[in-house]
Amino acid sequence: MKEFITLSEGSGGKGTKDLIEKFLFPFLKNRYLEVLHDSAVFEIEEKRFAFTTDSYVVSPIFFPGGDIGELSVYGTVNDLSMSGAKPLFISLSLIVEEGFSLEKLERIMESIKNASKKAGILVITGDTKVVERGKGDGIYINTSGIGIIEHTLDITPYSVKPGDRIIINGPVGMHGIAVMIERENLKIEGVKSDTQPLNFIVQKLIDEKVEIHCLRDPTRGGVATSLNEIAEKSKTEILIYEEKIPLTEEVIGACEILGIDPLYVANEGKFLIFVPEKHAERTLKIIKEFDEGKDAEIIGEVKEGDGKVFIETRIGARRIVDIPSGEILPRIC
Amino acid sequence: MKEFITLSEGSGGKGTKDLIEKFLFPFLKNRYLEVLHDSAVFEIEEKRFAFTTDSYVVSPIFFPGGDIGELSVYGTVNDLSMSGAKPLFISLSLIVEEGFSLEKLERIMESIKNASKKAGILVITGDTKVVERGKGDGIYINTSGIGIIEHTLDITPYSVKPGDRIIINGPVGMHGIAVMIERENLKIEGVKSDTQPLNFIVQKLIDEKVEIHCLRDPTRGGVATSLNEIAEKSKTEILIYEEKIPLTEEVIGACEILGIDPLYVANEGKFLIFVPEKHAERTLKIIKEFDEGKDAEIIGEVKEGDGKVFIETRIGARRIVDIPSGEILPRIC
Repeated sequence: MKEFITLSEGSGGKGTKDLIEKFLFPFLKNRYLEVLHDSAVFEIEEKRFAFTTDSYVVSPIFFPGGDIGELSVYGTVNDLSMSGAKPLFISLSLIVEEGFSLEKLERIMESIKNASKKAGILVITGDTKVVERGKGDGIYINTSGIGIIEHTLDITPYSVKPGDRIIINGPVGMHGIAVMIERENLKIEGVKSDTQPLNFIVQKLIDEKVEIHCLRDPTRGGVATSLNEIAEKSKTEILIYEEKIPLTEEVIGACEILGIDPLYVANEGKFLIFVPEKHAERTLKIIKEFDEGKDAEIIGEVKEGDGKVFIETRIGARRIVDIPSGEILPRIC
Repeated sequence: MKEFITLSEGSGGKGTKDLIEKFLFPFLKNRYLEVLHDSAVFEIEEKRFAFTTDSYVVSPIFFPGGDIGELSVYGTVNDLSMSGAKPLFISLSLIVEEGFSLEKLERIMESIKNASKKAGILVITGDTKVVERGKGDGIYINTSGIGIIEHTLDITPYSVKPGDRIIINGPVGMHGIAVMIERENLKIEGVKSDTQPLNFIVQKLIDEKVEIHCLRDPTRGGVATSLNEIAEKSKTEILIYEEKIPLTEEVIGACEILGIDPLYVANEGKFLIFVPEKHAERTLKIIKEFDEGKDAEIIGEVKEGDGKVFIETRIGARRIVDIPSGEILPRIC
């Protein structure tokens, strides 16, 4: 029996899952939380809303392609979008370490302002706390978000069915690798975080009446962890095709040098969508119309099964894609 | 021009006000945020909702009369109540330091569970992050909350008018002094935090059609800071009577030893209510029916003026009650 929190509990992988299931969930169990999706969905007088929260502790706070400011806006906007909700309002709560530079704070606030504008949401409430030097790490940001659900789909892992096709809107692993390169000061060029809002693309899919079964943004723990969670909850088997998974040359190179599988690396502007086979090609076409989706691919399918995820490699072999245990990349978001 | 964040920016006093006005607000300005009340109020199809957020960084995390768990539930429930909203749902986001004891985490979760039950709300979404040893301080908790507004009152500082009476529901300074005693390991007995939910008492006042002009929970910065903010926004003058301010013997004693004015000390189960004179006695009576309000008093009144707060001392002198500058009590909530 463990007695102390370790970094693996924050990895988004098995450690986080265990912590939630053994130490957090038993105290809070209720029908909203049970879904354990990116957002909670609740109803008030026949209107459905989504509600989500995330604390951002990314280190370093500035990285190629983004910073903690825009990350904290897009991350929460995307979590709302993953319920098919239209994001409306977010809160902004800062935990700042004594001695933090006000110039950096201004850069972050500018970034939050621009990201809010781009995503079409408003920051309407906030809070600021300061902790002593050595009791934080520059700045931590919490954003919580509220969205409205204007469709009747039930977008959760439980709606995933055998036969569904799985689409991703572009190359994987960019955010995690960009943060890692910056943190470790590695001499690897060309990798940028994919931080971007996904709400407009999701809204378009809903407007076009795509029968969406599930949406998930593969952040901490990457695509591998997200697929495992969905396979487990939907009690299906998931098969993905290695050759179909979009990857940039830069991420492939960096992953080889670092000895990391990009499937386990965090993304901040990607989503997995599960749709019936008959909707797959049309869904792909709609996604590809967006700049955020121009490299989209159908990467896999859902089969009858018992919660496992497999990958078909380039040479036709099939291996299991496990949920990672231990520390993956701490403080990636 | 300051270049770095100091603890005074987290005090809830002048430093926090300056930080918000100079570094945060200019980037986010919108009609919801402008009100700068405890909760933001927004409307969806003629239904009004309240939304609020708070990060809790109290040190120590366990203190006489409470802990960070119940504080993070009641604090957010109370912020919602201060808009006259009925609190419905909260989010729970943990930033845990590597090495934090799982036994303590369980105690905190138990406390969150009990507080949620007592306040009648549900935790429906959450997040957990882990930071390396030395990059946090045990645990920081963010809760954000959503409530529904089922009345037509406009409960904000801008509704405060000359002639209004000001009521508080009980003794001031208990939370801040309790935390300080525990933190500094002082040999002062008998002071307990007043952490408690205020939603039922506010609901009753609304049900009883009290014409509430403003509600405010005097947390960081205490009663003095809250009154100054309200006087400034309502462009009135506030006068309070020293002899009417409820205080416990223990807090009086502790404040004398510590050289602190209890009017500047944080509360976590108190609220200030502004009502027209004709409603004052009835409001007081309703509040006194509650355990959380049995020591309520009418402590002051609103006059024509320009944003200043005065206190009439026991000997009949009148002195100004300033908004505090510099560090008051850091990490009190």
